[in-house]
Order: sequence, then structure tokens, then C-alpha cells
Amino acid sequence: MRDKATHPAGGRVAIVGAGPGDPDLLTMKAFRRIGEAEVILHDNLVSDEILALAPRARRIDVGKVGGGRRTSQEVINRLLVNEARAGHFVVRLKGGDPFVFGRGSEEAVFLAEHGIDAEIVPGISASVAAASSAMIPVTHRGVSAHFSVVTATSAKEDNATLETAWRDLAAAGGTVVFLMGLRKLDRIVSNVRAAGVPDGRPMAIISAATTGDEAIVTGTVGNIVQRAAAAALPTPATIVLGDVVGIRNQIIALTARPSLTARLG
Amino acid sequence: MRDKATHPAGGRVAIVGAGPGDPDLLTMKAFRRIGEAEVILHDNLVSDEILALAPRARRIDVGKVGGGRRTSQEVINRLLVNEARAGHFVVRLKGGDPFVFGRGSEEAVFLAEHGIDAEIVPGISASVAAASSAMIPVTHRGVSAHFSVVTATSAKEDNATLETAWRDLAAAGGTVVFLMGLRKLDRIVSNVRAAGVPDGRPMAIISAATTGDEAIVTGTVGNIVQRAAAAALPTPATIVLGDVVGIRNQIIALTARPSLTARLG
Repeated sequence: MRDKATHPAGGRVAIVGAGPGDPDLLTMKAFRRIGEAEVILHDNLVSDEILALAPRARRIDVGKVGGGRRTSQEVINRLLVNEARAGHFVVRLKGGDPFVFGRGSEEAVFLAEHGIDAEIVPGISASVAAASSAMIPVTHRGVSAHFSVVTATSAKEDNATLETAWRDLAAAGGTVVFLMGLRKLDRIVSNVRAAGVPDGRPMAIISAATTGDEAIVTGTVGNIVQRAAAAALPTPATIVLGDVVGIRNQIIALTARPSLTARLG
Repeated sequence: MRDKATHPAGGRVAIVGAGPGDPDLLTMKAFRRIGEAEVILHDNLVSDEILALAPRARRIDVGKVGGGRRTSQEVINRLLVNEARAGHFVVRLKGGDPFVFGRGSEEAVFLAEHGIDAEIVPGISASVAAASSAMIPVTHRGVSAHFSVVTATSAKEDNATLETAWRDLAAAGGTVVFLMGLRKLDRIVSNVRAAGVPDGRPMAIISAATTGDEAIVTGTVGNIVQRAAAAALPTPATIVLGDVVGIRNQIIALTARPSLTARLG
């Protein structure tokens, strides 16, 4: 881990993962960098609770998800370079991990092209934490020895390329986590079926994982579209496909019925 | 995230991810739970630096990696139940994330079967952090829209099943991260080739990621076995396959030659 991020003019940039939502799931290093920041560029996935940890920082909202306002990646890149060159300590704060679908690596390359060696501070990726928050392990001995994480929405890849990836990963038989896929759930399910996955394979959707608004729907390939529609889940949501969803059901069944303890204990 | 883990007799269990190695990459919640612990059951992947954060806890080393001494999962499960039933606050501390190849979910199921509702505290998985510590993003727009994480060593899966998974995931074309695979590197490479991946596809191996002993070797499918042997890398190591390894090379080339800045800036 690079611990220093220096720039000839004195400014520094740290590209920091804010984790899945719960401020308690920030790393110690992320917490410290946020507190030290003079300027914070953050996206919409970073909560107010986390931003409140930076009372002295000038905040620039460069959110690119949700409503109408968007800041182009080019403008964000320029802002990072300009703020660092002005001598500030700049924290680029992103939901999850900056190197997992966060475009943090594009920013790191751009900064490097401009002589700025950014520090990368990893965060807990929602791809794993959303599942574990729902008591779903992405791997479980004898159930799944691998997991894959794939985006359902991409500005760069065309839909056909993405859907081929979904089918290939689903066909591999382990756990598949789809990010940003709630609005494409029907396409995900039809591709998963086309890959030969049976209708009975469990699925889960976790909305707003690890926050107070967390909502979870479970089902199967055969019924998850209807169940998700009935629940009117909010975004952002993480979709999990795989037998590991059964572990959640197993744990819930056990802890909801403490009378079992006597028999099994 | 479940914030309470109570047991009728007053004991509690938290299954806590210690992250990839650097104590600064503990989450705030993990740091607090370690400090509160009365008993800590830890494995060999948890560093002394992190254990030093629990000066008042009674420590039980249940390491299962490396040398001769191993504690069976059954014994670990029993210890967790017994220590909790004795009224202690028990922290089960694991390298990385407890739900990513950590067998944390097996322990959670066992505890649930015994009426104990364990709290799960996620950690940063080495599967992602080892790569980012080496400036390798597991995804990068236009380069890879998905990544897969697979174990190379499993007590439960047979080799043929694992190798089929390696080939399927490699054939899907995105980033593949192999955990615990250093001793099987030649088998990994021959399966990757059998999946049709060209010899020029970049690979990287990161040993002891995020610690002071971190060592990185990069190469390609065609030469990584020789390079790894020449470097005599220590375990644990994370193996990354994919064009995203090129991002590291790009960033290093740029930051090592600041003269480029004037031209590109």
C-alpha cells in the first residue's frame, strides 16, 4: 500500500473507498484521510453520515448516479489535478472500493499522467458486503468455491457483451453478484436461464446494504422478478445468484426458532 | 448489518474480518470489537500487530495454514460455543473477510444451530486488496467489466472440479483472482492455456499484500511460472490474471518518469 501521495507543488490526492454504507465499515485509514482532507470530491453513494466526518473539508459533489445532474469523468479528472496543483490535500471519496467498478483506476492513471502519484485506500466492496450483510457468504465450503462480480450497467460495454459475460459466469456454477442490475433484473434472469441455470437456483436482492434502509428479497431464478416487483426495492441494489443464498435461509430458520437449540445443542 | 449478537447466558460472538494485513485497513467496527474482546480465536493470517490491539483478551491460536499445527473446524466450532456459553465476548478473527473463503459462514451456521446469533463484521478481502495494493484494479472501464475469485486449494472440492472452474472463469475473459495458488501455479497456468487464454495475457502475483513484506511479480501466462520461481515468493500469495495488470504497468511507467508530465499535462 502506498502511504505517500506527493505532488511537486505540495498537493496530494488519496482515492479512498468509503465502503458499503455504514460509517462503521470505513477502514481506519479511510477515516483518517477523510478527517485530514482539505477538499473532498464525492459521489452519490457516499452518505451524509460519512461526509460529516470531514467538517473542515470543502466538498464537491460529483455524483454520477441517480437524478439528472452528472459530472463527466473528464471534469472530475481535471478537478482532481487542479485541486492538487493548488496545493490542497484532496480526497476522492467513492462508495465501496475505488478499484471495483469505481473508475478509481481511470483517475489514478490520469493523475499519473499529470505527475501526481495518488494514494489508493481500499474500501469494503458492496459486492461482498451486501451479501454478507444479508448473511449470504459468497463462498461456502461444499456449496461454492468461487464467486464472480459483474456490472449490469456500463457506459462502455454494449449490452450484448455484458449479457454474454452474465451467461458465461452463471454457467460456471458458482456465486454470481450483479451490481447496478435492479432495472435489468428481467434481462439478467432470462440470460441466467439461457445459460442453463435451473429455475430453482436461489437468488437474493439486497438494497441499500448495511444502511438503515437495507431491504432484502430472496427467491429463485423462477420467481425473483415478481418478488422484486412486489417489494418495490430501492436502488442501489446488489443481486446475488447461487446456492449460497440457502445459507441465509438456514441461519434465519435456526435463529428464529431457538427451540431447535435444545435438540441440536 | 446485525449489530447485536446475544446469547441467553450472556456471551456473545462476533465473526470479524481483519482485512488483508495492514492494521490500518481494519474497519472501525473491527477495531472496536477487537478492543472489546474477552477471548479471541484467530488464525495464522492475522498479524501480531493486529493482535496487539487486544491486550486484555485471552488469545487462542487456531491457525490452520502453514506449518504442522492445525485445529480442526469442528474443534473451533466447539470452542466458539463453549466460550460464548461461559459468558464471554468472543471475537473470531480471520484474515480478509469472514465470508470469502473464510469458513465464517460454517461457524455462523454452527453457532445458529446452538442458539447463538453471531454478529458478522466484514473485512477487506485480500482478493481485491492484494490487486489494488499492486495498483491493479480488478475492473477497469473498457478493459474488464467483471472479475472472479476462486480458490486454488480446497479441502472439500477435488482438483478436477476446481480446475474446471479455473478454465470456465478464465474463458469468460474478465479478471480472475486465484487465492492460495502459489504452489499450484503451473497447474493454474496450464488450465488457463487450455481455456484458450493467449500466452501474452498479463498475470501478477502479490505476496503478503499490504504488509511490510509485500512482494510483487508481474509477467504473462507464458512466463509467470519462471518469474515466480526466480523470485522465490513467500505465501500467502494472490494470483491475478487479466489485462487489468497492464494498468499497473501504465501507472508505474508514468510515475517513474515525471518528465512525461510536461508533455501530457
